[in-house]
Amino acid sequence: MDGTPRIEAALQAALAGWERASGPPRLAAALRHAVFPGGARIRPRLCWAVAAACGADHPAAADAAAASIELMHCASLVHDDLPCFDDASTRRGKPSVHRAYGERLAVLAGDALIVLAFDVLARPRACPPDRLASLLRIVSHGVGMPHGIVAGQAWECEPRVVLADYQQAKTGALFAAATMAGAAATGADPEPWRLLGARLGEAYQVADDLRDVACDSAEIGKPTGRDAALGRPSAAGELGIAGALQRLEGLVAAAIGSIPPCPGRAALTEAMLVETQRLVPKELARRAA
Amino acid sequence: MDGTPRIEAALQAALAGWERASGPPRLAAALRHAVFPGGARIRPRLCWAVAAACGADHPAAADAAAASIELMHCASLVHDDLPCFDDASTRRGKPSVHRAYGERLAVLAGDALIVLAFDVLARPRACPPDRLASLLRIVSHGVGMPHGIVAGQAWECEPRVVLADYQQAKTGALFAAATMAGAAATGADPEPWRLLGARLGEAYQVADDLRDVACDSAEIGKPTGRDAALGRPSAAGELGIAGALQRLEGLVAAAIGSIPPCPGRAALTEAMLVETQRLVPKELARRAA
Repeated sequence: MDGTPRIEAALQAALAGWERASGPPRLAAALRHAVFPGGARIRPRLCWAVAAACGADHPAAADAAAASIELMHCASLVHDDLPCFDDASTRRGKPSVHRAYGERLAVLAGDALIVLAFDVLARPRACPPDRLASLLRIVSHGVGMPHGIVAGQAWECEPRVVLADYQQAKTGALFAAATMAGAAATGADPEPWRLLGARLGEAYQVADDLRDVACDSAEIGKPTGRDAALGRPSAAGELGIAGALQRLEGLVAAAIGSIPPCPGRAALTEAMLVETQRLVPKELARRAA
Repeated sequence: MDGTPRIEAALQAALAGWERASGPPRLAAALRHAVFPGGARIRPRLCWAVAAACGADHPAAADAAAASIELMHCASLVHDDLPCFDDASTRRGKPSVHRAYGERLAVLAGDALIVLAFDVLARPRACPPDRLASLLRIVSHGVGMPHGIVAGQAWECEPRVVLADYQQAKTGALFAAATMAGAAATGADPEPWRLLGARLGEAYQVADDLRDVACDSAEIGKPTGRDAALGRPSAAGELGIAGALQRLEGLVAAAIGSIPPCPGRAALTEAMLVETQRLVPKELARRAA
């Protein structure tokens, strides 16, 4: 699962295309702060890997799709960190956007990143016109209502939540969008790729829950113990650490088993195996063994 | 300048297309609260009027464009009302979204409306594929960086601002997007329509500044005197009431004079004259006369 240099270049180009001396400089700086340096870039790398496996005939469309997904992810982090949600002071080892630029610019930076995530799809020479509507709707479904990541976050404001539905929306939805967008960027049918992303997303969410209870904040670059402190649904809280580890393994197996037939299926399967082995926090795996 | 029933129907369809029993119900309710009942729907009516003047050959595309513009406007109101910005308790005569549903759902409702504004453009049978990229980019430019309404709002976080640039971005940009999207929805070249929207947007912003200093809050359904209280740039503050009224007249004349040649030019000019006469607050016009 590679493509990282292309993804960084696509994100740089996405922001550069919006930067003008005549725009508000602090918002421009806040956008760069939110996007660079990145985290693991898991979603866009997944998007790119699926496009490559489908035989990316139009690399610019795969770049645009990957950048779009990552920009949505960055937007969600900026807004999730706001004082009214997680009130996180750090993110990726540096101050969160609202700590660095204030709450107003953090709200606006999140908004702007959502807009940019759609803008990149429609830039000249980005997507063939006959693929644009499909890509746009895959991204909007992954983010919007009723089952996208914004809906997932909104479940935290409801009195009653089913853990699987919450995690599917909060994380699985954008992973599913990543795999589906990778396929759609090549002109392939995106639907058979939904399950791979959805299962991987659930797996990453469970892994994130585990890190939240079992790691220290220096290790992962953001505060830990937040789920319990904020009373949020959590696999580790609901199933215990051993149960959550078991669930994680099952989800990874289901994800890899769901990879549809495609020219690069063997290589993608291998890449997924390597990638998902990194999911289990080392210390936890040692303790569980 | 009509099209109101079509616009309301398009907005209803936009939200209904996202509503499922399996989605978070409070966010769904917050979205409806933000969109209905509407204000004057000036931007989507303007969009529709331009499409009609260009000879709307594809009404569904004009509906989608108009709905997209209005959803962006609604999103901006929800976020502008947040405690970190205007901290407005009322909007359109009822509680602001964050007062009714809490700050977290207000952030998410704004995010979701931005996503929905793009989603409606790509729905089946909405826009012909060869018009989608143009429409998407017109909307994203009207909202994003460096000169869209998000950038306009961000100028309030900068130490120094030029009033005309600020107002052009904060209001003019989405009006320009409205006129340009109306043209693009019919397959016409959008660029000649930019000036009409930009000038009208400035005119509405000046009128809004005037209402903020000269009307009471019951009359306009939201708190007044906010610009001065928040130290925001304002035409009425900078030019005085008489100067601002003069500027408003000049902007309206420039707007109407800029209408490009098109099949429905005469009817559009007439509609613009009627519409813009409502801009000057009656009490002010009486006092100024």
